[in-house]
Amino acid sequence: MFREQIKVLDCTIRDGGLINNHDFDHRFVREVYKAVSAAGVDYFEIGYKNSKRLFSPEEYGPWKFCDDEDIERVIEGVTTNTKISVMVDVGRVDIDDIKPASESPVDMIRVASYVKDIDKAIFLVNHFADKGYKTTVNIMAISRALDNELNEALYQLEEESKAEVIYIVDSFGSLYQESTEFLVKKYKSILKTKEVGMHGHNHQQLAFCNTIEAIIHGANYVDGTVYGIGRAAGNCPLELLIGFLKNPKFDIRPILEVISKEFIPLREKIEWGYIIPYAITGMLNEHPRTAMALRKSEKKEDYREFFESMLSTEIE
Amino acid sequence: MFREQIKVLDCTIRDGGLINNHDFDHRFVREVYKAVSAAGVDYFEIGYKNSKRLFSPEEYGPWKFCDDEDIERVIEGVTTNTKISVMVDVGRVDIDDIKPASESPVDMIRVASYVKDIDKAIFLVNHFADKGYKTTVNIMAISRALDNELNEALYQLEEESKAEVIYIVDSFGSLYQESTEFLVKKYKSILKTKEVGMHGHNHQQLAFCNTIEAIIHGANYVDGTVYGIGRAAGNCPLELLIGFLKNPKFDIRPILEVISKEFIPLREKIEWGYIIPYAITGMLNEHPRTAMALRKSEKKEDYREFFESMLSTEIE
Repeated sequence: MFREQIKVLDCTIRDGGLINNHDFDHRFVREVYKAVSAAGVDYFEIGYKNSKRLFSPEEYGPWKFCDDEDIERVIEGVTTNTKISVMVDVGRVDIDDIKPASESPVDMIRVASYVKDIDKAIFLVNHFADKGYKTTVNIMAISRALDNELNEALYQLEEESKAEVIYIVDSFGSLYQESTEFLVKKYKSILKTKEVGMHGHNHQQLAFCNTIEAIIHGANYVDGTVYGIGRAAGNCPLELLIGFLKNPKFDIRPILEVISKEFIPLREKIEWGYIIPYAITGMLNEHPRTAMALRKSEKKEDYREFFESMLSTEIE
Repeated sequence: MFREQIKVLDCTIRDGGLINNHDFDHRFVREVYKAVSAAGVDYFEIGYKNSKRLFSPEEYGPWKFCDDEDIERVIEGVTTNTKISVMVDVGRVDIDDIKPASESPVDMIRVASYVKDIDKAIFLVNHFADKGYKTTVNIMAISRALDNELNEALYQLEEESKAEVIYIVDSFGSLYQESTEFLVKKYKSILKTKEVGMHGHNHQQLAFCNTIEAIIHGANYVDGTVYGIGRAAGNCPLELLIGFLKNPKFDIRPILEVISKEFIPLREKIEWGYIIPYAITGMLNEHPRTAMALRKSEKKEDYREFFESMLSTEIE
């Protein structure tokens, strides 16, 4: 697949940070940044801009806050076209922390929001856009959105927001490609002046599949992470995505090299990937938190019992 | 997805056997058989019928030959609707070894063939069909088939063969879902009197994706293996497939249980799954044999060098 407009965003450090309290050391982050840059990837998302009044820097690593000085240390001296992105969660950012874009190493701010918080997300993206940032809204937990509410949110985003890209975020890794097709077509039909983005999760080994499906139907912003690192089952593997895209600006070799040198050893220390309890929460369209708790318990491999416990949860 | 005609075939022991010389012990095979039966899976493919004049029983385990007595020991006393399948490779079977279906525990024989051997495959399936077996032809390495040769093979299969199902076999794990859609539509347009089957490989994490895609476009026979076991990156995970299919006859729980008890320990001893050199051969539409050799060498994690060596192979 080649389409010049396609932009790839690497969120290795940002989404990977969800499994180690955002505590990657500077050397590691810089190695990933150099590899992603050399691979020709368009954006490097380095973490979250969270308020230090809400989260303690003693409990979390630097990529929970992404101070400009920390970002500068990572990117210093690297010649690249790769731009820096940070993510902001509705309700967790102190907007006074965000300097004007002209004074910051950050190029893009992505606002993660549930459908119900879309008004707050619009306030934030418009604020950041006014400060000179490129902005996006990433609609989380899309597999649980009610169709009428999602439609309303998309119309609002089209009419009221300065975001340039609106993402589908399959937080639970529960979308099959039929639903991805449905959602991309819906987004495109409403968001006449914006680009569509796709952020997959790999609980059912479909993150790459859904990303391809989104591209086929016109999404031009797609996320990946090196070796698929990310919370629970992880994300769309960047190396597979680059293998699929035929855009000559991409080079898979630096990604292969950084996997060998950094991610194979890392995978011995922290866990992500195809793990049955995450597949189960994906199938059931549930947040992976119950599976994450299971993996820290003595019953980590008791899959049948876990599945049955998920089914027996009272819903009504 | 629910469609009553969909039949699921488990080829755990047959395709998994490719990574351990078909040497699973009887206890293990029986445990898998019981789980697959309890899960309501339609077919259990237990191995190959190879000629003992071509392969030595001293070098290979029983599932390279699938003597009827070995099969009987596995299935004895289990009450089930699950039928037994074996695979036959063109040029490796002694047809005199195959008893009439009425005297055998085997219900179905699948003939694996390259496009170039389709005349031999038709001879074999017609011979086995005349002996009373349900038969299929599985066209291997489909991602390398020339379109005109594939068309001719499909017309021949439609007109000359007694096979009931013709499979797409993505031997190299290189198909993206667009190509799967193209192939299923082609098969269905030519094979008016036969069913279409799909056998995926997981080199690029797309085996499940391609299986869903095939189902969407009308394939009714689909293969999976428990925990995705199989040569190189393995196959479509049966547990994901059952999670996708809404047919009430399927029950995922016995599969989850056998993964916990048998496959988690087994994975410590033999390797399959998402491993970068297999992803690379998939992207490049190559047989995984070079990657399999790499994994047995000291350079098993040198992905960039492996990728570059694959590109530098003289082709012209």
